[in-house]
Amino acid sequence: MAQINPTVGDLTGNADLILEYLQRASAVNADITLFPELALPGYPPEDLLLKPHFARANRRALERIIAASKKQFIILGFVDTDGSDIYNGAAVIVDGQLIDVYHKTYLPNYGVFDEERYFQAGRKYPVYVWGEARLGVNICEDIWYPGGPDKMQSLMGDAHLIINISASPYHANKTYDRERMLCTRAEDNAAALAYCNLVGGQDELVFDGNSLIINEGGHIIARGKAFEEDFIVADINLERVFAERLHDPRRRREKIRLTADESLYLVVVKETERNSLGTTPITPFAYQRLDEAAEVYAALVLGVGDYIRKNAFDKVYLGLSGGVDSALTAVIAADAIGAENVYAVFMPTNYSASESARDAELLAKNLGIHYQVIAIQEAFEDYLKMFAPLFQDLPVDVTEENLQARIRGNILMALSNKFRGLVLSTGNKSEMSVGYSTLYGDMVGGFAVLKDVPKTLVYRLCQYVNQRDDKPVIPEYIITRPPSAELRPDQKDQDTLPPYVVLDAIIEAYVEDDMSAEAIAQMGFAGETVRWVINRIDAAEYKRRQSPPGIKITPRAFGRDRRMPITSKFHH
Amino acid sequence: MAQINPTVGDLTGNADLILEYLQRASAVNADITLFPELALPGYPPEDLLLKPHFARANRRALERIIAASKKQFIILGFVDTDGSDIYNGAAVIVDGQLIDVYHKTYLPNYGVFDEERYFQAGRKYPVYVWGEARLGVNICEDIWYPGGPDKMQSLMGDAHLIINISASPYHANKTYDRERMLCTRAEDNAAALAYCNLVGGQDELVFDGNSLIINEGGHIIARGKAFEEDFIVADINLERVFAERLHDPRRRREKIRLTADESLYLVVVKETERNSLGTTPITPFAYQRLDEAAEVYAALVLGVGDYIRKNAFDKVYLGLSGGVDSALTAVIAADAIGAENVYAVFMPTNYSASESARDAELLAKNLGIHYQVIAIQEAFEDYLKMFAPLFQDLPVDVTEENLQARIRGNILMALSNKFRGLVLSTGNKSEMSVGYSTLYGDMVGGFAVLKDVPKTLVYRLCQYVNQRDDKPVIPEYIITRPPSAELRPDQKDQDTLPPYVVLDAIIEAYVEDDMSAEAIAQMGFAGETVRWVINRIDAAEYKRRQSPPGIKITPRAFGRDRRMPITSKFHH
Repeated sequence: MAQINPTVGDLTGNADLILEYLQRASAVNADITLFPELALPGYPPEDLLLKPHFARANRRALERIIAASKKQFIILGFVDTDGSDIYNGAAVIVDGQLIDVYHKTYLPNYGVFDEERYFQAGRKYPVYVWGEARLGVNICEDIWYPGGPDKMQSLMGDAHLIINISASPYHANKTYDRERMLCTRAEDNAAALAYCNLVGGQDELVFDGNSLIINEGGHIIARGKAFEEDFIVADINLERVFAERLHDPRRRREKIRLTADESLYLVVVKETERNSLGTTPITPFAYQRLDEAAEVYAALVLGVGDYIRKNAFDKVYLGLSGGVDSALTAVIAADAIGAENVYAVFMPTNYSASESARDAELLAKNLGIHYQVIAIQEAFEDYLKMFAPLFQDLPVDVTEENLQARIRGNILMALSNKFRGLVLSTGNKSEMSVGYSTLYGDMVGGFAVLKDVPKTLVYRLCQYVNQRDDKPVIPEYIITRPPSAELRPDQKDQDTLPPYVVLDAIIEAYVEDDMSAEAIAQMGFAGETVRWVINRIDAAEYKRRQSPPGIKITPRAFGRDRRMPITSKFHH
Repeated sequence: MAQINPTVGDLTGNADLILEYLQRASAVNADITLFPELALPGYPPEDLLLKPHFARANRRALERIIAASKKQFIILGFVDTDGSDIYNGAAVIVDGQLIDVYHKTYLPNYGVFDEERYFQAGRKYPVYVWGEARLGVNICEDIWYPGGPDKMQSLMGDAHLIINISASPYHANKTYDRERMLCTRAEDNAAALAYCNLVGGQDELVFDGNSLIINEGGHIIARGKAFEEDFIVADINLERVFAERLHDPRRRREKIRLTADESLYLVVVKETERNSLGTTPITPFAYQRLDEAAEVYAALVLGVGDYIRKNAFDKVYLGLSGGVDSALTAVIAADAIGAENVYAVFMPTNYSASESARDAELLAKNLGIHYQVIAIQEAFEDYLKMFAPLFQDLPVDVTEENLQARIRGNILMALSNKFRGLVLSTGNKSEMSVGYSTLYGDMVGGFAVLKDVPKTLVYRLCQYVNQRDDKPVIPEYIITRPPSAELRPDQKDQDTLPPYVVLDAIIEAYVEDDMSAEAIAQMGFAGETVRWVINRIDAAEYKRRQSPPGIKITPRAFGRDRRMPITSKFHH
């Protein structure tokens, strides 16, 4: 299994990558080589799929792979077309010939997915008969349905091995749920299951890899790495599948009740000489389940790193404030692209505590990133002077706070323009939810690393980072000080917001679980607090609509995942 | 037909509006009253639909209407639910009872639509038998399919009148295509057709009204206003439908070939006393097709006006530059919410021509909007001083241009923050396409009025506006001068961009028609120009993702309508 990291639309580069893995497969005498869903065009191609020449170009790239693949058996995701519809397809390539194409039958159209927007659904379930081996092929969503193609393939088509190629986007703790489901499918079908998942970052999504090979008893026999490309080799004992079936009374009963319909079809594959892995080491089952912080951290590093690399940047700029969000963003950026490519700017006013300056500098030193100080007090006062005749004697309010944030935004963008670096935005999900952030100010940037990370999880990630290394990289006071935007004298986040532990719980209930105000209050929160938070979340929709993309790590991220109207009078 | 303008999520306000129109219907003795698709919750509710309590709240609002609707026959769009799925429904309310609910069967999931994301599709086609009258009901997309519910309802169910309630988003010249299709359906079915469309602005969408009543011969007998609420009364002669059918040989043949299946069902409606319109004036057929400029202009006025009103703003701020885009935006804003609520700011540097100052002021005076000048030369120089040690002797480039735009953005946002006005962004579709605009600079704002209006159409709209009034409101030199961003000495748009007539044609081919570079060049454009434009369009995706929403007026607007990856290497 080639658990690869292609780039959306890079048909030449992706084909090269696929050919490279096919050579590795040849080198170990693999019988069958799998690539993820839409591995050739990259996933998700979104509206590129609506260009007729996109499917054609991906077909030409496929021909190149077919021509170069003598003596191999390959399952590869690509965009198939019959000239009037397009399909999410799995090419079945044997000995340099495209012998069949499977079309995905269940098209996800919820959450971040829009597949009904593009694809016609397949209606046929193939089983490939290859000597004594019978192989069933399907794609991603197909395997999530208990009565999906795998059932027909393994029960009526007698497939010994179910192959599922996937592009399954990450969110925290999803990996285990997915694994549990896949093991159950293998056992229910009394069939081996090879699950080849995509890896890599694509805009707001991260694909986590974690490909699996599961035996007919539902036990994992090989596993791909998390958040890295991997090449997974396993030897599947088909004799064991037959043995298991002789022992499985459920199967015999179900087979009588189910009727094979025209959806099932068999393809007899010309038998080629079967390979032997010989002394090739087989990827072992090494259970390395990461705890939540480690897993989310790895997802963020991969997500931002791939965004930077795939968009051809080589350095990033970010504002360090002496607070916990910008500190964590800097650590992640340094891990993703190397400390030498990270440029941090500290931009104090008279409201900035001396500890902020000290800690920002210390953090930069600990990390080994570039660091500079650009004081903005003078620029701030210049603006105040300019506005004096307009604002007259009106009281100071959020206007003046936003001005400071916008001067900082201007500076970061000017550095980005002049020196061609990507600006990373440092806000977290809690701020983004309630709009505790300045549009065109601290929200500026090409990518918002922590956009889907609630503040309470930001703290846990900081602790994870500090425990991971010999010496804590984030100065302790950054973590222990009360959080502050430092936009007015003695300002604290908690002057405006409920405690983060309360805020984050309400946000989760409202945004991720779609609970009503009443139901959230019944969880034990003050009704007034719940109402305040919900009103803020709804009112901040216009800000979020103009925010940079960030990495989805929860079941419901802002962005494609949650499509709320700006104009709405429903706030419950 | 009540061609109403509800607000998304405003269940109480929308129910009040519906009750108000029901009183008007009573007052004229209407037999049947129609409201648009999802009129009760507003359209499109987007992910509000994923909140289980949203459907319940809309059901409670429906109960209020049912209880208040004695002696009426009403077709009303709402969200129906059976407790596990939701449906895009049409409530059929007769004499204070909900006698049936039709479920939309064709769910649009392309362009701006995501209905497969939310709704279960209906599978049944009702015909309501009401004395001698037979009525078929369906919803929006249903009528666009030649073999949709209306065919079964009129042919096998013998419906005399097909009722279609809609929420059909506007784009330029769509109205006529829709009308042609609806007239053909009526004639094909030999049935009268009542098409009740929504009106109003909702975020990026405008619904144009233009409801229709068409007779069994395919001729329009009444028409609702364009871009305004309307109450349309017509008298439909069902005897004529029967007569028409006796003359229609196609119908008798088709009836033999088609089989009535279980999708069709009849509901016998308790016969109530039939009303008489008496002396009520019937809405006449007044063909008032607007030319393209007038139609687009009306759409923009309604779209921005509704965005402002429905989001509870009462005034707007915008930057006037002395150029054509900001001039047109100001005219539209003044038409939408009144000149006294429009605040224009002219923000010159030393690069601003004296004609710009003169014309900006003159325009403001002609319109009667508020006008102030805030010079930004000093602020610009302050920034340059601050950056001097960082930028050293690096050449002046786009950084310095962007700085000027961002200072202007800061000023508009500060005014918005201090005085609670909405900032209107003034950029057009041509700029937005190729990224000829400054993120966080001239792109700031809550709403971008001209976001989907190509520059060449901006000029046509200016001419329309000037011809419309006795005295041209836009100073002639604003229209005739060569367009310039005035961000460096003697800068002209055409130093950077191809002529707008070329640029706009390439944008249309690439963005709206998904044509390849090769195919566009074959239209007669220089290959190099085509390549340059396409690369700029693709590279500006990250900017567009952070742009304010704007009004869709073309078949493919940026926003929900075109979902491109930022990270992509496919540029063809």
